[in-house]
Amino acid sequence: MATKPSIPKGTRDFGPVEMARRNYIFDTIRSAFKLFGYTPIETPAMENLSTLMGKYGEEGDKLLFRILNSGDFLKDAPQELLNNKESHTLTPFIAEKGLRYDLTVPFARFVVQNRNDIQLPFKRCQIQPVWRADRPQKGRYREFYQCDADIVGSDSLWNEVELLELIDEVFHKLKVRVAIKLNNRKILTGIAELIGESNRIIDITIAIDKIEKIGLEKVKEELISKGIPSDSVEKLVPILQLEGDNSQKLDRLQEILQGSETGLKGVEELRWVVSRFDDLGHNAVLDMDVSLARGLNYYTGTIIEVKALDVEIGSITGGGRYDNLTGVFGMSGLSGVGISFGADRIYDVLNQLDLYPQGIGESVKVLFLNFGEKEAEASMKLVKTLRRKGISSELYPDNVKLKKQMTYADNLKVPFVAMIGESELEEKVVNLKEMSTGNQMKLSFDELAEKFI
Amino acid sequence: MATKPSIPKGTRDFGPVEMARRNYIFDTIRSAFKLFGYTPIETPAMENLSTLMGKYGEEGDKLLFRILNSGDFLKDAPQELLNNKESHTLTPFIAEKGLRYDLTVPFARFVVQNRNDIQLPFKRCQIQPVWRADRPQKGRYREFYQCDADIVGSDSLWNEVELLELIDEVFHKLKVRVAIKLNNRKILTGIAELIGESNRIIDITIAIDKIEKIGLEKVKEELISKGIPSDSVEKLVPILQLEGDNSQKLDRLQEILQGSETGLKGVEELRWVVSRFDDLGHNAVLDMDVSLARGLNYYTGTIIEVKALDVEIGSITGGGRYDNLTGVFGMSGLSGVGISFGADRIYDVLNQLDLYPQGIGESVKVLFLNFGEKEAEASMKLVKTLRRKGISSELYPDNVKLKKQMTYADNLKVPFVAMIGESELEEKVVNLKEMSTGNQMKLSFDELAEKFI
Repeated sequence: MATKPSIPKGTRDFGPVEMARRNYIFDTIRSAFKLFGYTPIETPAMENLSTLMGKYGEEGDKLLFRILNSGDFLKDAPQELLNNKESHTLTPFIAEKGLRYDLTVPFARFVVQNRNDIQLPFKRCQIQPVWRADRPQKGRYREFYQCDADIVGSDSLWNEVELLELIDEVFHKLKVRVAIKLNNRKILTGIAELIGESNRIIDITIAIDKIEKIGLEKVKEELISKGIPSDSVEKLVPILQLEGDNSQKLDRLQEILQGSETGLKGVEELRWVVSRFDDLGHNAVLDMDVSLARGLNYYTGTIIEVKALDVEIGSITGGGRYDNLTGVFGMSGLSGVGISFGADRIYDVLNQLDLYPQGIGESVKVLFLNFGEKEAEASMKLVKTLRRKGISSELYPDNVKLKKQMTYADNLKVPFVAMIGESELEEKVVNLKEMSTGNQMKLSFDELAEKFI
Repeated sequence: MATKPSIPKGTRDFGPVEMARRNYIFDTIRSAFKLFGYTPIETPAMENLSTLMGKYGEEGDKLLFRILNSGDFLKDAPQELLNNKESHTLTPFIAEKGLRYDLTVPFARFVVQNRNDIQLPFKRCQIQPVWRADRPQKGRYREFYQCDADIVGSDSLWNEVELLELIDEVFHKLKVRVAIKLNNRKILTGIAELIGESNRIIDITIAIDKIEKIGLEKVKEELISKGIPSDSVEKLVPILQLEGDNSQKLDRLQEILQGSETGLKGVEELRWVVSRFDDLGHNAVLDMDVSLARGLNYYTGTIIEVKALDVEIGSITGGGRYDNLTGVFGMSGLSGVGISFGADRIYDVLNQLDLYPQGIGESVKVLFLNFGEKEAEASMKLVKTLRRKGISSELYPDNVKLKKQMTYADNLKVPFVAMIGESELEEKVVNLKEMSTGNQMKLSFDELAEKFI
């Protein structure tokens, strides 16, 4: 088998440079999670399809990666389906498990399954890959990481404020300038009520979610094509074109939504959250945006989305409140609110803006060149001494031409090269070369160990 | 759907306590990798089945988890296979991808695919889960983590010495007492030559690999049942019953293997590695073991296996040299040597011996209780101040009974509880309670921030 190997489309390898960059992002997010008191959990890559199906809409079900049952998987498959090649109907007979599609549904399943061991309110974070059989395209992968923080078991809007703080902290640390867009699902409900189409809330939110992408006219067309009367659609226009700062927008909405109790509740919640977050002070731009609905239908209160200000890219973080996360697994009355950092898009942003700190992904600090058996023995003892002191170092394993060893040092950007040749071995000294300056110095074996502390 | 949800058998959820413990293990291994100059890579969970198939033997192929193709996967399946329900033969038509089974084959694939970007010798580490459709049992899971370190592109035995150093470092840091078992595949080849069965090397090594599990007599039976003549089997016995320390065993082997050039080469290599490792000094017991063959057939030189001394469990780390890792992908002449730390078994060992450091998995340092709107506002400002100084802290989100809030603090083992009630708010002080002692103190807002630095 001599054909060049490849990986499945939509997936990626990450080499040393990419890993250093990605770990910088993950470590920043992980530290913030810890600082804020979110405790980590992990769930299996595979879930039962009964857990996953029906949670992401019809489209989502299609995008689930399914694991073929082991062994003689066709044994119990109805012959008729096989004869007619009914792939779709056959699936449940030959695949019981699927790869997780996000971290939210596995988290809900985790909470219900471990309900007796969990202290509520439960603040959990989770950083793991998810898989979607989406058509791969720029910035969209079939395997990508999500970094989620959620609180379940508390209705308090302080949780929303804290999540905004968390977003602000992470992007400030990463030096990415962002706008946080905020809305409240109750405002959307109020709007639907206002125009007399409260049972069309899902169609309406899906359509207005697209306003930035396709513009006002297309959204109107879509709504009309969905059967919303055109006079109702017209009533929406002033709402989609709110002007001013957050406070002015909220004031205006409060007037418009006078007729809807739910709508007013949404305005009140949003005002409270915005005001507390402003009081605490923040770096991110905060932007109340009534067109923000997000694709998912399970949000019931606050809706959050984060956009990078300096790069053209979709949302890099999103979330919101869902009042009945665990209801679908038979545990009702548990409110949750959470956000998901899209690590792969954040990675794209940092790459485009080159926002990585200096020295990231540095190799070993000291490389000992290999001058032969006896010299290598002495070098390896010093390598061990340095490692004991926490200084990363290594011996070039082969006694090959120095030029080759130096090329290795250059390519790995090793800051110091240590040389113990025949004469150094006799003198019991190390010739240490600082690669950035070219400076060389002779140090005794003891001095070397002290040099880097 | 109100049935209690569950996860696929052989998989596990990890809650906050387990995560803290597991991260302690992963962090220890990761730090050692870094200290030794191994740079991390990651590969996708899914590989093309053409990459995975045929690399783990017939048994391994059966244990691969296969991903059902998306869409109308039956379209191109031969009707005849469907009619006859030939699951096994049908598989390639409906599944092109599988989940990785280990990290070694994906690494080989990575090296070949990225050969132009890789600096040789390439020292890589990789910590990721793998999946096997094994029958789940105690200590054996269908999803588990491997932590691999390999060097490719260097024949030097210094790499073996370094890997032994790495093993010693990791288990010393984890406080696990271990024996490192060492062998060399060339010695096994020499033995097979010696008894005149050099083309039966695989049967012989598979059988003698079982000597600890099933004993000498059963191994003899197995060899005879495989068609090895019983006088040849008898010639094996003295070799399987070597006595003495490593040096004595090696001396004896050298005598026995005089007739085999390959066997003598193996003895020489092993002697060199043992001697260098001994010179450097180590904590682990080092035990030359000629019965060590390991299941996998691709080792060509050194073979390494690590056993915990204080817990009855299979090998917790293993590895060796494979001279033609990438040959199967069309890139020959690249020698590699590596080890794989079995994180899940190491986790079981640490759990049994309770070897975790104190304070692991601590929650936030300071929990602010919630006494109402105004008090919470003041508290949240202090939370923010503490977080800015790197001190993890949080506000209890709901204004509920104090008893409930204190139960939360107890269950999460929060070390400090901060209280700003009505009177504290007026005085601008915090009432800080150290939970381990019950001591309380009043601090000004400024003093609080200084307290934890």
